[in-house]
Amino acid sequence: MVKFIALYKKPNDIKAFEDHYFDVHMPLASKIPGLKKIELSRITGTPMGESDYHLMAELYFENMEACKAGMSSPEGRASGKDVMSFAKDIVYMMFAEVEESAPVAAVN
Amino acid sequence: MVKFIALYKKPNDIKAFEDHYFDVHMPLASKIPGLKKIELSRITGTPMGESDYHLMAELYFENMEACKAGMSSPEGRASGKDVMSFAKDIVYMMFAEVEESAPVAAVN
Repeated sequence: MVKFIALYKKPNDIKAFEDHYFDVHMPLASKIPGLKKIELSRITGTPMGESDYHLMAELYFENMEACKAGMSSPEGRASGKDVMSFAKDIVYMMFAEVEESAPVAAVN
Repeated sequence: MVKFIALYKKPNDIKAFEDHYFDVHMPLASKIPGLKKIELSRITGTPMGESDYHLMAELYFENMEACKAGMSSPEGRASGKDVMSFAKDIVYMMFAEVEESAPVAAVN
């Protein structure tokens, strides 16, 4: 499994950001072909206090080929274009390969 | 569900970092009470090329109370102390609340 990660810094106008994010961006991102799951996380803080970050979206795909194909599809490009329209200065995007978590299952 | 996220920048010595991470750190982190799952991701790049980041570990807990209790337990403190011993300058840690991903299920 692989994922495309979009990590958003805290926006200046949180309400405007969230309105666009949930009303416009999520519906676009949800249409990306090959997408298996979106895990959306609200950053609540750090061990030292407030975080610079606000949201993290993780888009899961079967493999890197499916991920790259999804991101370069018309739906993926529309979603990417939308991000640039409202979060260009606060988003950091990464591709990642997900490893299993066997040690934990053995302990808990 | 909540998670504790540790995002690691690319270390100068990748082999030394990974040896410590997998041989020492993961076994310590896996013992944190209340931990439901660790999802470990290798960052492979960004849409623009190479990423500044190398690894992301996401430690899942039932709720924020369980997460904070786990992190402040003896096992959590041992794991935190270990991070500071080998990755102090390259780790960024966050707490996050995980939201569901209903829109995707409806589309795919």
